[in-house]
Amino acid sequence: MNANAADAKTLSSIATSVRTLSMDGVQAANSGHPGLPMGVAELGAVLYANILKHNPANPAWPGRDRFVLSAGHGSMFLYSLLHLSGYDLPLDELKKFRQLGSLTPGHPEYGHTAGVETTTGPLGAGISNAVGMAIAETMMAARFNTAEHRIIDNYTYALAGDGCMMEGISSEAASLAGHLKLGKLIVFYDSNRITIEGDTALAFTEDVAARYRAYGWQTLECSAYDTDGIQKLVAQAKAEGGKPTLITVNSTIGYGSPNKQGSHDVHGAPLGPDEVVATRRNLGIAEDAEFYIDPAATGFFAARKADFQAADDAWRSLFESWRKANPDKAAQWDAFFSGNAAALAAGADMPGYAVGDSVATRASGGKALNAMARVFDNLVGGSADLAPSNKSDMAGAGDYGADDRGGRNLHFGVREHAMGGIVNGIALYGGLKAYAATFLVFADYMRPAIRLAALMNLPVTYIFTHDSIFVGEDGPTHQPVEHAASLRIIPNLTVLRPADGEEVNESWRLAMSSENRPTALLLTRQNLTSFEKADPDWKANFPRGAYVARDCDGAPEYVIAATGSELGIALEAAETAAAAGRKVRVISVPCREAFFRQDDAYRASLIPANAAVVSVEAGVRSGWDQLGGKYLGHVGIDTFGASGPAKAVAEHFGLSAEAILTKLGIAGV
Amino acid sequence: MNANAADAKTLSSIATSVRTLSMDGVQAANSGHPGLPMGVAELGAVLYANILKHNPANPAWPGRDRFVLSAGHGSMFLYSLLHLSGYDLPLDELKKFRQLGSLTPGHPEYGHTAGVETTTGPLGAGISNAVGMAIAETMMAARFNTAEHRIIDNYTYALAGDGCMMEGISSEAASLAGHLKLGKLIVFYDSNRITIEGDTALAFTEDVAARYRAYGWQTLECSAYDTDGIQKLVAQAKAEGGKPTLITVNSTIGYGSPNKQGSHDVHGAPLGPDEVVATRRNLGIAEDAEFYIDPAATGFFAARKADFQAADDAWRSLFESWRKANPDKAAQWDAFFSGNAAALAAGADMPGYAVGDSVATRASGGKALNAMARVFDNLVGGSADLAPSNKSDMAGAGDYGADDRGGRNLHFGVREHAMGGIVNGIALYGGLKAYAATFLVFADYMRPAIRLAALMNLPVTYIFTHDSIFVGEDGPTHQPVEHAASLRIIPNLTVLRPADGEEVNESWRLAMSSENRPTALLLTRQNLTSFEKADPDWKANFPRGAYVARDCDGAPEYVIAATGSELGIALEAAETAAAAGRKVRVISVPCREAFFRQDDAYRASLIPANAAVVSVEAGVRSGWDQLGGKYLGHVGIDTFGASGPAKAVAEHFGLSAEAILTKLGIAGV
Repeated sequence: MNANAADAKTLSSIATSVRTLSMDGVQAANSGHPGLPMGVAELGAVLYANILKHNPANPAWPGRDRFVLSAGHGSMFLYSLLHLSGYDLPLDELKKFRQLGSLTPGHPEYGHTAGVETTTGPLGAGISNAVGMAIAETMMAARFNTAEHRIIDNYTYALAGDGCMMEGISSEAASLAGHLKLGKLIVFYDSNRITIEGDTALAFTEDVAARYRAYGWQTLECSAYDTDGIQKLVAQAKAEGGKPTLITVNSTIGYGSPNKQGSHDVHGAPLGPDEVVATRRNLGIAEDAEFYIDPAATGFFAARKADFQAADDAWRSLFESWRKANPDKAAQWDAFFSGNAAALAAGADMPGYAVGDSVATRASGGKALNAMARVFDNLVGGSADLAPSNKSDMAGAGDYGADDRGGRNLHFGVREHAMGGIVNGIALYGGLKAYAATFLVFADYMRPAIRLAALMNLPVTYIFTHDSIFVGEDGPTHQPVEHAASLRIIPNLTVLRPADGEEVNESWRLAMSSENRPTALLLTRQNLTSFEKADPDWKANFPRGAYVARDCDGAPEYVIAATGSELGIALEAAETAAAAGRKVRVISVPCREAFFRQDDAYRASLIPANAAVVSVEAGVRSGWDQLGGKYLGHVGIDTFGASGPAKAVAEHFGLSAEAILTKLGIAGV
Repeated sequence: MNANAADAKTLSSIATSVRTLSMDGVQAANSGHPGLPMGVAELGAVLYANILKHNPANPAWPGRDRFVLSAGHGSMFLYSLLHLSGYDLPLDELKKFRQLGSLTPGHPEYGHTAGVETTTGPLGAGISNAVGMAIAETMMAARFNTAEHRIIDNYTYALAGDGCMMEGISSEAASLAGHLKLGKLIVFYDSNRITIEGDTALAFTEDVAARYRAYGWQTLECSAYDTDGIQKLVAQAKAEGGKPTLITVNSTIGYGSPNKQGSHDVHGAPLGPDEVVATRRNLGIAEDAEFYIDPAATGFFAARKADFQAADDAWRSLFESWRKANPDKAAQWDAFFSGNAAALAAGADMPGYAVGDSVATRASGGKALNAMARVFDNLVGGSADLAPSNKSDMAGAGDYGADDRGGRNLHFGVREHAMGGIVNGIALYGGLKAYAATFLVFADYMRPAIRLAALMNLPVTYIFTHDSIFVGEDGPTHQPVEHAASLRIIPNLTVLRPADGEEVNESWRLAMSSENRPTALLLTRQNLTSFEKADPDWKANFPRGAYVARDCDGAPEYVIAATGSELGIALEAAETAAAAGRKVRVISVPCREAFFRQDDAYRASLIPANAAVVSVEAGVRSGWDQLGGKYLGHVGIDTFGASGPAKAVAEHFGLSAEAILTKLGIAGV
């Protein structure tokens, strides 16, 4: 706080404005959640006026504090405060709350509205993002700060409700945050004791603060309406450098609405015209004052603008003097923030493979990861306690932890969902590239976080090993069958299932070149054999999703489309058929959906309309019918797997060259 | 404990046998996890010998205690104890550990091996199952026990490792268990401080017991090797009737292996031949004694057999005298356990609809649920805090809670994943039918539990409302796009997307008739109009997945396949085309994968080979190409949605009758 900080009266005027804007925005949309914004309006006022280090005129300022509205349904809280404090969010946009194409969608969307740090709405996710941002801050600080210049030095704040606290993802993330001693993470818990079904007493009576203390957090508590108290507790949180802090703010949901506050009616529905008027009366403003903003609030932020800019300028000047004093670090900074990912990826010294080499793609994946780690200094990541199996460690890159913020290997523990949310938070922070690893079957545990990465255009990478029934003995609980298919249909997610070490290299190149899509790499536990590619331009065609792996003279009568570990039996089947004089082409389909997006000419160049086509993948058929040609069916698995040695399991499920020939109608050739 | 309980020496002989069997089973398979079984062998011994109320000769005994091995990778722990204590699991099967077709798959599989109460492996899930079983116990006790006869009176035990404790699902489930004061739930936490990546200090340093106390649990602690201590703590757990109990047993992973115990090497890999021999030596048994069983262990369980049977017999006699004294309750019991679900479902007094009625399918779903609740007294369930939106309350059925174990409406809180695991546990307990409700988009949060329900053949029902971009204002985070497709590809899961109230009735009939498959009902937020069905046998054909909703004279030139809310625009398009003289058929496809499973004749009777075919659904195309006929494409959405009023969003994404006609190549007819 400084001399120009808002006093209690000014904060009250801002809070009133948050209430009126939120109430009216929801009422205008006839849809939305007034309860949270009205309930914790004072917290918002004190945050945006006095606590946050930010510059509304420059939302991308790297030195800014981050604020995550984990309780994303309270989006009008954020929109009101962004508007009031001077972000590029005109009042007209607040009036278009939840309208198509407005800057004020129902839940806050990253990349859509200035000042929105992450997309929230799915509960609990925001807390995991905040943990990721707080981790990223310590990582960036370790890399770039010097004794003289602390260019990275920000806090991460989050606001969470009861729903966020009940979700498992927040438990996982909070446990890890405590373990990692993230002292610059401050989470406000809006305890209003109301959920959609009624009072929290219906289902949620645990002692949240005690739980967070068990995680290793500092816990504090005050009234949501005690702005002095909130500021004092934030100071206390900052003073405790070795623990994240949970500040419980006790609030009344919908505070200000005389007849509805404190009830679950106000959580997720407009107040209604009468109650809107009653609320205005209660707040002491004109009954017809729609989208009322207290002039004192406007005046305060107008005056505060210069302070915000001054802080940014001071940082900029610190940054510039840091640059001059540390040219090596400055060059590294530029590399971290430059968009030359594709060039870097192309330049990586990838491992080489000869035809016939037999290597599991998880192993070649580990090597490619390490090659990338050498050119991308900003690559960080880890596994949900499966690093030795996922081959996801970066050699010599150190373990990130409370004692080593410079380490690049993260240990997420057995917390897949939080891992997904945390890598999103790291990517959102800026400067770093992140990956997350687990078994493919457990992608299900983190699916909501993967979806959010895709929705936010975050170029994170997922390493999903043990990608089929070839896991073998671990049995059906650990054998993915539907997982490749289920990931492929998440919009904006690139799913790659490479067939040998060389394809793994290209997959990693694609992943690291991505600027705006997450990438999932599906890798095998078992060895695969490197094969000679028929298409001399296969590397150039690789991003198109499919290319010719083995060809015949002239137009093919048969096309076998295969991915990953099943390319081997596809080639075997083709060999047999070719020996019998059949014209068979095998196409490798590392990225099926990318292939489906190609133009007709490319698709037809691989799969002629008259060719008989069979797909081969140790997974469900769903989606493969779209290949084109005369589709005859799928050699795969549409049931759950079984426990046994991989070969026996594959035999049991009829995954064989013979089955491919049978499906093509040329069995016994 | 009784006079015939095993003494410390006998328990030690059993523990030694668990160690040797587990070690040798894993070694023979050259795959598996010896660390847990060896680490907590004494706990297993005391459980199966002295603590569990069970009868190995009758694993289905309703009065038995339940034991859940949440740390499913330690499956040899369970198999060893099942074999030793007399379950139908011959030693030869232990020797075939992890072999195809054996009774000893890599992870325990419910329905496959006698005495396995649930399928585990995906970490944390078992704890949620145990919570469900403990809930079910209280529910059944409330329904059937009398002052004179306590026929339902069992404990639920679970064994969890560090991994289970880190997973969010266990946090959610434990929080709810504490809230619900499940005094007969006892969870053993095997704290061995080792995970796959190394020491738990890498990622997991929270105070687990303090966390559980915050949830409202009693927490106790002792050495894993103090069998007296364990029995005393279990007595203490039972004495605390109002809280679930967490008993932390401090163990050394792989205990008994002289050179590997206490290290993560022993977690998930065979000891190796040398260490196996060294371990035998260390345990004081012959170096070549493969699959060694201490004769004292064999002798004990042989003698104990009569006790186990006597307990079962005593219960049976109690049960029979209860039956005589309570004929009404006995009849209800028989109904709960009978297989006449289909008959009951057929007899339900379902709501009626006239053509033209406009009702959201979530609303007609709520009515159908209530009709079912009236005929199925054993139906229990609830929502993850969205009951008012999901319309998932059973009117007049009471709220289940610590104060009303007879209530049938569960309040899961915002804990989707635990909800999924808990309904699995309720279904596993026996006697009850369970459902779980949330928004379709949040099915992702509980996907691992849905998969396990399908794998275990549990006939639970999921109510997934708000099933498309027609959610509208809540925007892309809340608009399912890929979710129908992603659920359809989970093996053994029935996914139904009904198109009006009548289809909703049939959907609920199917769901409640199911004996061995879970069912997901995808329901709308917005109103849909009841339509006249062209097929007079549409109800009979409904389970086949598709039927003719609107027909033309003679063979159709065009077939429009639609589901749920998009049937309306399909009918509209057909109307327009028919008016222009085109022969158009509309098929409703409430269960796409069921339709794909029909024989060619039925499929061709709906979709002639020469007909032009378009699919229509407010979701991704993936999977629809399999329809047959001349497939021209999909009218749907392959990107994320957008926030705005539903109509505006639908228009934005081109979901219209016009788009269908365009796709059919007859725009502007």
